[in-house]
Amino acid sequence: MTTDLSAVKAALKAQAVETPSWAYGNSGTRFKVFAQAGVPRTPQEKLDDAARVHEFTGVAPTVALHIPWDRVEGPTGYADLASYAGERGLKLGAINSNVFQNDDYKLGSVANPDPRIRRKATDHLLDCVDIMDATGSQDLKLWFADGTNYPGQDDIADRQARLGEALAEVYERLGDNQRMLLEYKFFEPAFYATDVPDWGTAYAHCLKLGPKAQVVVDTGHHAPGTNIEFIVATLLRENKLGGFDFNSRFYADDDLMVGAADPFQLFRIMYEVARGGGLKAETGVAFMLDQCHNIEAKIPAIIRSVMNVQEATAKALLVDADTLRAAQQSGDVLEANAALMDAYNTDVRPLLAEVREELGLDPDPVAAYKASGWAEKIIAERVGGEQAGWGA
Amino acid sequence: MTTDLSAVKAALKAQAVETPSWAYGNSGTRFKVFAQAGVPRTPQEKLDDAARVHEFTGVAPTVALHIPWDRVEGPTGYADLASYAGERGLKLGAINSNVFQNDDYKLGSVANPDPRIRRKATDHLLDCVDIMDATGSQDLKLWFADGTNYPGQDDIADRQARLGEALAEVYERLGDNQRMLLEYKFFEPAFYATDVPDWGTAYAHCLKLGPKAQVVVDTGHHAPGTNIEFIVATLLRENKLGGFDFNSRFYADDDLMVGAADPFQLFRIMYEVARGGGLKAETGVAFMLDQCHNIEAKIPAIIRSVMNVQEATAKALLVDADTLRAAQQSGDVLEANAALMDAYNTDVRPLLAEVREELGLDPDPVAAYKASGWAEKIIAERVGGEQAGWGA
Amino acid sequence: MTTDLSAVKAALKAQAVETPSWAYGNSGTRFKVFAQAGVPRTPQEKLDDAARVHEFTGVAPTVALHIPWDRVEGPTGYADLASYAGERGLKLGAINSNVFQNDDYKLGSVANPDPRIRRKATDHLLDCVDIMDATGSQDLKLWFADGTNYPGQDDIADRQARLGEALAEVYERLGDNQRMLLEYKFFEPAFYATDVPDWGTAYAHCLKLGPKAQVVVDTGHHAPGTNIEFIVATLLRENKLGGFDFNSRFYADDDLMVGAADPFQLFRIMYEVARGGGLKAETGVAFMLDQCHNIEAKIPAIIRSVMNVQEATAKALLVDADTLRAAQQSGDVLEANAALMDAYNTDVRPLLAEVREELGLDPDPVAAYKASGWAEKIIAERVGGEQAGWGA
Amino acid sequence: MTTDLSAVKAALKAQAVETPSWAYGNSGTRFKVFAQAGVPRTPQEKLDDAARVHEFTGVAPTVALHIPWDRVEGPTGYADLASYAGERGLKLGAINSNVFQNDDYKLGSVANPDPRIRRKATDHLLDCVDIMDATGSQDLKLWFADGTNYPGQDDIADRQARLGEALAEVYERLGDNQRMLLEYKFFEPAFYATDVPDWGTAYAHCLKLGPKAQVVVDTGHHAPGTNIEFIVATLLRENKLGGFDFNSRFYADDDLMVGAADPFQLFRIMYEVARGGGLKAETGVAFMLDQCHNIEAKIPAIIRSVMNVQEATAKALLVDADTLRAAQQSGDVLEANAALMDAYNTDVRPLLAEVREELGLDPDPVAAYKASGWAEKIIAERVGGEQAGWGA
Repeated sequence: MTTDLSAVKAALKAQAVETPSWAYGNSGTRFKVFAQAGVPRTPQEKLDDAARVHEFTGVAPTVALHIPWDRVEGPTGYADLASYAGERGLKLGAINSNVFQNDDYKLGSVANPDPRIRRKATDHLLDCVDIMDATGSQDLKLWFADGTNYPGQDDIADRQARLGEALAEVYERLGDNQRMLLEYKFFEPAFYATDVPDWGTAYAHCLKLGPKAQVVVDTGHHAPGTNIEFIVATLLRENKLGGFDFNSRFYADDDLMVGAADPFQLFRIMYEVARGGGLKAETGVAFMLDQCHNIEAKIPAIIRSVMNVQEATAKALLVDADTLRAAQQSGDVLEANAALMDAYNTDVRPLLAEVREELGLDPDPVAAYKASGWAEKIIAERVGGEQAGWGA
Repeated sequence: MTTDLSAVKAALKAQAVETPSWAYGNSGTRFKVFAQAGVPRTPQEKLDDAARVHEFTGVAPTVALHIPWDRVEGPTGYADLASYAGERGLKLGAINSNVFQNDDYKLGSVANPDPRIRRKATDHLLDCVDIMDATGSQDLKLWFADGTNYPGQDDIADRQARLGEALAEVYERLGDNQRMLLEYKFFEPAFYATDVPDWGTAYAHCLKLGPKAQVVVDTGHHAPGTNIEFIVATLLRENKLGGFDFNSRFYADDDLMVGAADPFQLFRIMYEVARGGGLKAETGVAFMLDQCHNIEAKIPAIIRSVMNVQEATAKALLVDADTLRAAQQSGDVLEANAALMDAYNTDVRPLLAEVREELGLDPDPVAAYKASGWAEKIIAERVGGEQAGWGA
Repeated sequence: MTTDLSAVKAALKAQAVETPSWAYGNSGTRFKVFAQAGVPRTPQEKLDDAARVHEFTGVAPTVALHIPWDRVEGPTGYADLASYAGERGLKLGAINSNVFQNDDYKLGSVANPDPRIRRKATDHLLDCVDIMDATGSQDLKLWFADGTNYPGQDDIADRQARLGEALAEVYERLGDNQRMLLEYKFFEPAFYATDVPDWGTAYAHCLKLGPKAQVVVDTGHHAPGTNIEFIVATLLRENKLGGFDFNSRFYADDDLMVGAADPFQLFRIMYEVARGGGLKAETGVAFMLDQCHNIEAKIPAIIRSVMNVQEATAKALLVDADTLRAAQQSGDVLEANAALMDAYNTDVRPLLAEVREELGLDPDPVAAYKASGWAEKIIAERVGGEQAGWGA
Repeated sequence: MTTDLSAVKAALKAQAVETPSWAYGNSGTRFKVFAQAGVPRTPQEKLDDAARVHEFTGVAPTVALHIPWDRVEGPTGYADLASYAGERGLKLGAINSNVFQNDDYKLGSVANPDPRIRRKATDHLLDCVDIMDATGSQDLKLWFADGTNYPGQDDIADRQARLGEALAEVYERLGDNQRMLLEYKFFEPAFYATDVPDWGTAYAHCLKLGPKAQVVVDTGHHAPGTNIEFIVATLLRENKLGGFDFNSRFYADDDLMVGAADPFQLFRIMYEVARGGGLKAETGVAFMLDQCHNIEAKIPAIIRSVMNVQEATAKALLVDADTLRAAQQSGDVLEANAALMDAYNTDVRPLLAEVREELGLDPDPVAAYKASGWAEKIIAERVGGEQAGWGA
């Protein structure tokens, strides 16, 4: 195991995890959304909650928005929202477009056979860039629910052409410091053919678009058995890894807390990130959460998720690169594996407690949050109005 | 291929497919429910639509209810609903319990750690048997969303014990001609451990309960790659196959039209049903649809689904049993496979057209439905009120 | 359904399916190779068998070789083998490299951490191009068993770099009319990370190499649930679909007869091929079989496989493009799906029988082969010597 | 976390892991078996190696045999082998039947359509019981490769009947202290329908046979996504868990070192074992390895595997049952999950080092083995003769 703990600690202090505004609101499955008391009713209240996560973890300084879920009105609405965030020690992060919840999008958005709907969807994406200009966000994150449910329903190749056209138009609109992050997903809500189903498709589109287009890896968006860290390593090699949507899954896109289902996989992913230079700020890899806390309390679940990313990162940083490389080069399968496992099997919680204390934080973020009274406060205060809901 | 077409035709005329009331209403994914014009607003309107499906196919005489989605009020409410059905040439079929959409069921129903909630859930199941008494339904279909999302969330074995206790109480309440049909599901909405995740678990419970408890096979509720026809053959051997919830899937529980994703699989299933005696009325296998028509027109989709079951059945009946068995016994792999494929590769649509004409029906049910004006009529008439919705 | 049957027939007559020399020999699983009587002992005997497949189907004029399984000696060995093929109405097809069965390749071939072994593997690939020069083969088909079994065993990114280097060297060696076809595989024999695991990785490498590098789609080499026809459509759009290795699977890389496990999938694939222009000779898509007939008689299994490809192609050609497109454009999900299914549900065996008769062939290739006495002849004559074996 | 470390240590000292004779020999995939220097050539040499594993771990006192791979001749052959083991501090464990590597078994063994072959297979199973009598083994472990590759190849229900008949005959032959352990497997080498594909099928057969028949869970024999610990908990509740074949997998039946692919899953399994009483000797759960060390050194891989089981067990024992139960009962999802994760995240290697030292062992078994010179010795001495091979 590596012995330079000061470098490890420095890297852990520099880490940033973006939390998504929608994770603070209600979510559920198609069967039922279970509402929770105290859930935010406005974008501002979501930021209030996100500020608590950052307060207790110290590494969650930005918040991703979802448009129109976080729509605010008025000519200075988004600038005001950015100020509101700033006053709470936060910045607004990626702008996530939503072109799947309007009735018009039943058969798709930018890949819809109807040109009117494609225009509407593309215009929404362009609006999101306007919002980025107002909020200072650098990343436009695009996930499309587009696809088909039945063979023959639409032409697969035509849909790719339409998608490519819309992406090109939006790409042109990006400012110099703005990126387009294209997300892929294996399936759901499309059940036959999804228009961006895998990293290969996202990569091919991004390559055509240019350097400002990069791929987002949502850890829950793969076929069973997919080796995600391989994709991470490959995209990093190609300079096309824009970032992550972290969550975990046992089955499909379960959107559980990251690290909850397979902590070893998360470690392997973070190892490849570190190995490929992805922890350096200049590489520009965004570490975002994208989760649904359907049955567990939301704020502590998000704190726990941030901590899980930290623990996996800490273990990845503890891998002794020299020992590992020597074993790999000599073809010693067991020793090479053991070098990786030595780091994974280490209990990094004491190290992270130290890191937090050095940052002036409570070593136990969950306990500190519980002791803060915030949960009781929002349950008491946030009465009436309409709760924010992921599937609303 | 078998040459006794009269027996094949007789079997096809005797076939019955039960349609589910909820498939006539809106449905969707967690991302969006796309409402459709003309969708029923009451249980009665669902029956009106179901009557059209039966009118044009001739083989869909019963309709499954879902409680409380199809709740009706008053002391004679359910008897009246049965009469309403009868006047339209229909009977009410299986009563489907719903113990997953109340806020109390966030952590489960009959397997919930809280005894109050278990009591409430069990009482609902007992109520469903009361409804069966009123409607004359013979089957209580039980699907539980129960399970956990995170390792450690609850005790797996304790949950089994609680589940067993509730099932036993409900089993005791069944009348002489009533059955309990227990459905299993691989995952969703539980994302870590589902309490009845596979046929083995359902079978073990049914075995303990007694002869009136049987397993329901929902064709979308299996792990990737599962050989469903093997399960069908096995349950038939054990006299524990209560019936099917038919639908099809490419990925998870996609709930597409049966036969749409893998028509060959549906054929293999129907072959095992026929082979194991499951087409005989006395075996008691219920053939039910359980689908979501999220983006396609609902009534013609249900008609198409019924036809897909018929086509698979017709092909299964066309298998030449003697040729097949001779090849199997002699170990001729290719000839045995060819005997099955010969039936599958046959175009049975002309045969089914004949069957329909002999039943006094239009040979093309979809075209006949379209020509009937029903779609236009319900779009015009069913304005206002609240549409029925699967995920409502 | 399309009514221009003459165009359909012309396309079917022009179709060519390449059979692999190794499918005529023994094969098996890791548990057992069951030897069959009459199996070829030499490359020449494999060609003799392949000539029978072509004789009875009329559409299998080329045979793929596997080096070193089909190694012949002497300065004119391969030219002589090509002549031997020519005398039997055949041509030699793709040259398949084998860099996985030498003890040196335990930890990989071109991606091995040991430069000596990488050199050896690359030299073998270059030798294969020499053989192509001798046989007149145009395609070098590359499949690598390279990968790792344990996390940490080797560096994922380094392995990509080594792989890319070797591919570049071989690419340079290709003649003007020669192609490199790069195959991907989800897993096996590597059980943690495979170096070319998906189409995205193969595509990225081919893109860097240049226009003579294209991707091969082996239909058994995907994660569960993968939509293969989507990949086909996408690669065709990018002009990067080099060809197919056809086979079928229920679980993993089962290598069953193409069309046996999911004939509807094969139809959907062939539909996308036809839709994307892939049936035109100038597109250069190679239709190859790559199967293991572990328990069934080999030659009739190959004949059946060729026929399965023909049947799927015929159905794909029968799709009424105008009806389909009109339904797609109008967003009529059910009609669009129905247009595709109408073709799929058609029994094309009579049409193919006609095609064969117009080509002067027996309408029933399997029956004709059986009547030919070839099976009895090779069982009697091929005694002694060493049978060719896939896993030998 | 639990604080009663003395009970935890006592349980760890009492644990026993059975190693399989065949893991000491060569193994591979269908593509290639890579031979390793020093591999045993006889059952005795396998026992010599197994004695080293026990010497350095202290918890591997028994060795499973595979018949005929470990066949010995002479009237006292097996008794002599047991004595040979005893002299080295070992006992012979489960007898594993092999009815898949004879040419007769191409279409199955006890489920073969040919009664002659069924008789032969059943006789082999009976012979295995004779061997048990001679060796003092208590467990007959049955895994059947039986199944079919193509739909229609054989009759699924008939095969079940034949299988049941053979099992019944063998069950009758068992002595009072002997058990039949029936293993299931999702697929491979059968690629369409496997005759014992899941725990439900094995359970149903065992239930009919009687109390001496129990199910074996091979951790690599499930469909993707299967929750194995659920099956473990369920079988323990039913008193039908006979034991484990431990190994790990990323994809299919990869047979990697247990705990290598998903250490969290192994922990969850061991937690359910402990929770259900399966660590108590009287429950009779056998903990066996069944792995293939295709590319890594075999003896250290087996030592590592034993240690991985120990580490997972130690973590499972550290779970604070009171904290966990309180959180479960109160419906606190996050706290209940955290109680489990607290134990999992603990580094138990120091605890296990202590346990070993208290047992008089080196705290680092792998290092101790390496220092012992055994590897060099067997490489030098085991020259000539025929290496034992798993797939031989």
